[in-house]
Amino acid sequence: MRKFILALFLFVSFVLFADAPKYVFLFIGDGMAVTQRHAAEEFSKKIGRGPLLINSFPCKGLTATRSANRLVTDSAAAATAIACGEKTKNYTVGRNAEGKDVYSSAVAAKEAGKKVGIISTVTITHATPAAFYAHRAARGEGYGIAIDLVHSGFDFFAGGGLDGKYKDSKAKEFKKYGHAYKYAESKGYKIVRTKKDFLALKPSDGRILTRMTDGPLPYTIDIGEENPYPTLAELVAKGIEMLDNSNGFFMMAEGGRIDWAGHANDAATNVRETLAFDDAVKVALEFYEKHPKETLIVVTGDHETGGLTMGVANTGYSIDMGMLRYQTMSAGAFTKRLSSFYKKNPSLTIEDVKPLVEKAFGIVFDGLKDNLISLTDKERTDFLKAFESDMKFLKAKKEENRQYDGPKRYILGTTLSKILERRAGVAWSTGGHTAQSVLTTAIGCEAQLFNAPMDNTDIAKKIKSFYGK
Amino acid sequence: MRKFILALFLFVSFVLFADAPKYVFLFIGDGMAVTQRHAAEEFSKKIGRGPLLINSFPCKGLTATRSANRLVTDSAAAATAIACGEKTKNYTVGRNAEGKDVYSSAVAAKEAGKKVGIISTVTITHATPAAFYAHRAARGEGYGIAIDLVHSGFDFFAGGGLDGKYKDSKAKEFKKYGHAYKYAESKGYKIVRTKKDFLALKPSDGRILTRMTDGPLPYTIDIGEENPYPTLAELVAKGIEMLDNSNGFFMMAEGGRIDWAGHANDAATNVRETLAFDDAVKVALEFYEKHPKETLIVVTGDHETGGLTMGVANTGYSIDMGMLRYQTMSAGAFTKRLSSFYKKNPSLTIEDVKPLVEKAFGIVFDGLKDNLISLTDKERTDFLKAFESDMKFLKAKKEENRQYDGPKRYILGTTLSKILERRAGVAWSTGGHTAQSVLTTAIGCEAQLFNAPMDNTDIAKKIKSFYGK
Repeated sequence: MRKFILALFLFVSFVLFADAPKYVFLFIGDGMAVTQRHAAEEFSKKIGRGPLLINSFPCKGLTATRSANRLVTDSAAAATAIACGEKTKNYTVGRNAEGKDVYSSAVAAKEAGKKVGIISTVTITHATPAAFYAHRAARGEGYGIAIDLVHSGFDFFAGGGLDGKYKDSKAKEFKKYGHAYKYAESKGYKIVRTKKDFLALKPSDGRILTRMTDGPLPYTIDIGEENPYPTLAELVAKGIEMLDNSNGFFMMAEGGRIDWAGHANDAATNVRETLAFDDAVKVALEFYEKHPKETLIVVTGDHETGGLTMGVANTGYSIDMGMLRYQTMSAGAFTKRLSSFYKKNPSLTIEDVKPLVEKAFGIVFDGLKDNLISLTDKERTDFLKAFESDMKFLKAKKEENRQYDGPKRYILGTTLSKILERRAGVAWSTGGHTAQSVLTTAIGCEAQLFNAPMDNTDIAKKIKSFYGK
Repeated sequence: MRKFILALFLFVSFVLFADAPKYVFLFIGDGMAVTQRHAAEEFSKKIGRGPLLINSFPCKGLTATRSANRLVTDSAAAATAIACGEKTKNYTVGRNAEGKDVYSSAVAAKEAGKKVGIISTVTITHATPAAFYAHRAARGEGYGIAIDLVHSGFDFFAGGGLDGKYKDSKAKEFKKYGHAYKYAESKGYKIVRTKKDFLALKPSDGRILTRMTDGPLPYTIDIGEENPYPTLAELVAKGIEMLDNSNGFFMMAEGGRIDWAGHANDAATNVRETLAFDDAVKVALEFYEKHPKETLIVVTGDHETGGLTMGVANTGYSIDMGMLRYQTMSAGAFTKRLSSFYKKNPSLTIEDVKPLVEKAFGIVFDGLKDNLISLTDKERTDFLKAFESDMKFLKAKKEENRQYDGPKRYILGTTLSKILERRAGVAWSTGGHTAQSVLTTAIGCEAQLFNAPMDNTDIAKKIKSFYGK
């Protein structure tokens, strides 16, 4: 009886006071599970940036990630669950396990008269953003996904470009639509090519599709004056400016390369990506603070990548995530730099790369230098071996192995980042995804809906309910 | 204003309807975080045992584990937090970070007139159980902890024995109290030496301290007719029988060796320990079903051990936890068996161990056999190398390295269990603890208190509040 009265109180309270949010932000950290958030927070505190905003939100729920056919989901199945509310098979986008098209919270928002923005740091046709507008049997159908993007009629697509398949003449719909960027233009999308043009956009510019790159944006750690791209925070800020209107909006923003840094087992790059993601959420929070009763911010991840853990036996349970600050470029960017050195000087020796290693990882090959990490004998041997191995592949003109999960060909960058990781007390168990749960946190109007353990499909169901779906 | 009214409703409802549970069960899985529960559940489903009871409880809260001085806690600091509600430094038992004695929910229960039982599958003076009754600067003070145990006056101590230090004549209090078992007897504890005697105990036997071993109980996977020890479920069942009384009771039961199997990176043994833990909770649930309004069951872990993940790149996100069923003894027990083979026959060859390997791991060294796992060439090479390495140490009469986190000397058992783990899709990142959060779940009277993210100290605070502390 007492339980019944309590339940009645709760029910009446929620019914009386329920309000659909006018502005909805859904942030997805790809490959960002509980540990990625925790690791980034510990790093953030060590560099004086303080705790993560995303971890401070009042409503929290552990969120299960499995797909329809795998304990370990890929991003396509996870995004379909988060976007559309249905489990599907790995690699499927916007269709359920029976192959039937399913529709996302973004579509529901558009149908309810909201403006819609889709943002990602990877290609805008990548699995996660695609699940919000596309319906394809395979995430690899880049051309078809680009066409679905145009047909969505959403207002704002920003971040990485369409992937290289935008002009895939072998794609079955190519005859009908042609070059996807041109098709988008013909349907009223303004194509934006540079950071400068992007930052200069005004709401009067209408529908937007960015093409600052045909691939993903660079890792945050690699963005700078020499490599000028907008950060995720800048993408979100511009998105708000473009989408804000009296009917409200729905925005999905993905930190897509947290996952890539997880696949690469590159911890410094991983935590920097998560901080950049947190910075982007901060921009949404500033909007929320102006419209607290009408704004909902939901932050989630799609799965864990890399089996990241803090705590390795050799540090006696002492963790110093601050050690990762010595790394100033991703292991991948380091490899590219090494390759360009080699092209200029094919008889490259270890002496030639020492300055680059000092700059990129804060590691001095031999001896001691102020504010640099010195090596043990074993680490120096590993360094040399990795250098020789990389030189062998450079001489053979081998490309890096592009597969997410495959072993990397070029290992010097990873060898060096691992030296920092061991000192930090970080370890990885795999180059792929794991079955771990993620954390969903939320603040604002109706955030309490996200204050319980949930399935990833529940996120879509709750958001779609705001639009009467 | 609406939020305020809602909060007021909730507050009034909880105050009006709050009820302290008469029977409290606190289950602690040592080294059991979210992943251990998830991995055991997937294994359980594959062997037809179904989902884990502990994961089905209605109230769930992610629980932070860090200690006062480390991001990665040890079991002593974690247990002090869970038992007493205060953060302390790693290795400290029942004292806060300033060295002041702090008191547990078990002490509070006893002071409130409840009977108290402490159960563990490891030594009953081990860090986790000790935090409920002892106050020591270091978890290694086994003798002192044993004396604190006697002084607690708790009603029921069962599982592993006092650790070997019970007769440590160099301990500072030894002169005063002498042999700790004898001292316990002098204070009214009945010492129980065998499983048979244990199972025959009656409430009229009074206070109990088991001494079925001076170490931990064996791993569940190694218990059997040849190795007869009670399971955790049997310990809990007897505990209920001994403690049940009209004033109620508090019982803490620890699955202590989930952690040890994590340190050993032995997944089959790990999931079997977690299932045994789940079986023990089932016994408490049967009691709860008889007294649903008066019983609370809380299940938590103290930290994660091993950086366990499901999902390795080589299986393409396909996990088959059922592969672990081929392993029928722990890697540690296998090493002991190998050692006893060697003692009987010092010219042991690989031929002599093949039958043992088939029995212990379901692995056939060469060729194919029905219902056995066959090896790749690389695995066979690893097998041979590990066998030769183990033989070298056996010839040199080296003991296994007893340190939790240190590299193991004897590697054949681990090499073989890893072969199954790769096929299952399981990986580990470390031999030690990690900083991951654990999951707390609860059912019964006041279980809703545990339905939110919490700190490990909150568990103690909530339980102590039932006893007016």
